[in-house]
Amino acid sequence: MTLVNMESFIEDIARQAGEAIMPFFRTGLAVSDKASHAVFDPVTEADRAGEAIIRNRIKQTFPGHGILGEEFGTEHGDAEFVWVIDPIDGTRAFICGIPLWSTLVGLVRNGQPVLGVMNQPFTGELFLGTGGAAHLKLRGTSRTLTTRRCARLEDAYLATTSPLLFDDARKPRFDALAGRVKLSRYGTDSYAYCMLAAGLIDLVVEAGLQPYDIVALIPIIEGAGGVVTAWDGSPARHGGAIVAAGDPELHRQALDILNG
Amino acid sequence: MTLVNMESFIEDIARQAGEAIMPFFRTGLAVSDKASHAVFDPVTEADRAGEAIIRNRIKQTFPGHGILGEEFGTEHGDAEFVWVIDPIDGTRAFICGIPLWSTLVGLVRNGQPVLGVMNQPFTGELFLGTGGAAHLKLRGTSRTLTTRRCARLEDAYLATTSPLLFDDARKPRFDALAGRVKLSRYGTDSYAYCMLAAGLIDLVVEAGLQPYDIVALIPIIEGAGGVVTAWDGSPARHGGAIVAAGDPELHRQALDILNG
Repeated sequence: MTLVNMESFIEDIARQAGEAIMPFFRTGLAVSDKASHAVFDPVTEADRAGEAIIRNRIKQTFPGHGILGEEFGTEHGDAEFVWVIDPIDGTRAFICGIPLWSTLVGLVRNGQPVLGVMNQPFTGELFLGTGGAAHLKLRGTSRTLTTRRCARLEDAYLATTSPLLFDDARKPRFDALAGRVKLSRYGTDSYAYCMLAAGLIDLVVEAGLQPYDIVALIPIIEGAGGVVTAWDGSPARHGGAIVAAGDPELHRQALDILNG
Repeated sequence: MTLVNMESFIEDIARQAGEAIMPFFRTGLAVSDKASHAVFDPVTEADRAGEAIIRNRIKQTFPGHGILGEEFGTEHGDAEFVWVIDPIDGTRAFICGIPLWSTLVGLVRNGQPVLGVMNQPFTGELFLGTGGAAHLKLRGTSRTLTTRRCARLEDAYLATTSPLLFDDARKPRFDALAGRVKLSRYGTDSYAYCMLAAGLIDLVVEAGLQPYDIVALIPIIEGAGGVVTAWDGSPARHGGAIVAAGDPELHRQALDILNG
């Protein structure tokens, strides 16, 4: 299978998952609590339905590949190719009816994210990244994405999902960065990384991410010309505390502030 | 003109403004800074284009009516009927490419909001409220909106636009409320009030609103069965610090906490 076929495949499975998830959007949902009592972590029927479809398609088409998914765990995690799945990234947005959730599917080869898709079926948007390029497919149209130059924090638009993402050690560092930028926007989930790829947001700073929250987005960000790492500069693919920038110079400045 | 015709008119002018605004969405924008240096308050060509269309339509159709708009000020503010316009509510969302901004148009009669519309042209959603009923019109479909019952804070989903909305006096009160609910969601703008009307969010708490940020939403919230007031229980139509709830009992509990 060629790389072009892989792009068609990943787009197809993300769209198919979206079709399975959409009937649950804005309806009464059976929300359970899979985490500890301290953190509310909703699990929905939609999450499970979406991931089951993606897993089955991958197993049928690439039986030797590994799979890492939010809902059903890891299989063959040491394979050359590993698919990394979050059927509904932004579950809180989803259960509140806000169309900033997405289905994320990434492909990792020998540890490197090489292909990623973000699908938002309510708005009809699909973001596809290959690391070398990134595209937005919107209701039958396709356009190439490029991050914008923004070398000064004072000009930057910063996005994050919630102030509650940051622990006591990280919150003052995030606040120091937020105090330097032109505009802060909250409540963005994976959507922010795609708007960074589209040249509309300059910085995304988060913490507490899982690999499946970020792996699919790395080829989109990098394909559009952006940079994404952990706060300590190590690869983003392991999750944790993440900083993405459209301009490499801005990324360097953000790391300086976030690391005190 | 009958009330039904007024509903058609308000829907029509909000959609027409949306069509004028959409070409500016996700393009390079001339963002100016109309406020003091302390607060970044973007103004766009799109804002002005949207409001100009709405004002012209109102003046042609109802020359005796008053108009209050974000961009071009107040005319005939003491008329029996006054239209209250925010061409782009959620300007930060707009300039970041996030489809949670909206065009808000409300109609006030003798000081009472009697009709309101929220139009989001990228997603194709239009929310219409009469105070007696509320509807979501989505890409050719229409459905009646009803808030959900949720009498306990511990079960409630809470939304607000940004933690930065609240001053030093209000922030601890907001935090006390946020600490009691099941889920907090940020970055929601006017979209949150519509999801409250749709029965997906239970509480929206904000501060620093202008009348044009909230007047159009009051007939939508109340039409769906919800309650919206200022934090001190006075009418919401004057803006300021606002609390909306889908369940009147939850509204009462929220007021208790927000007022210490």
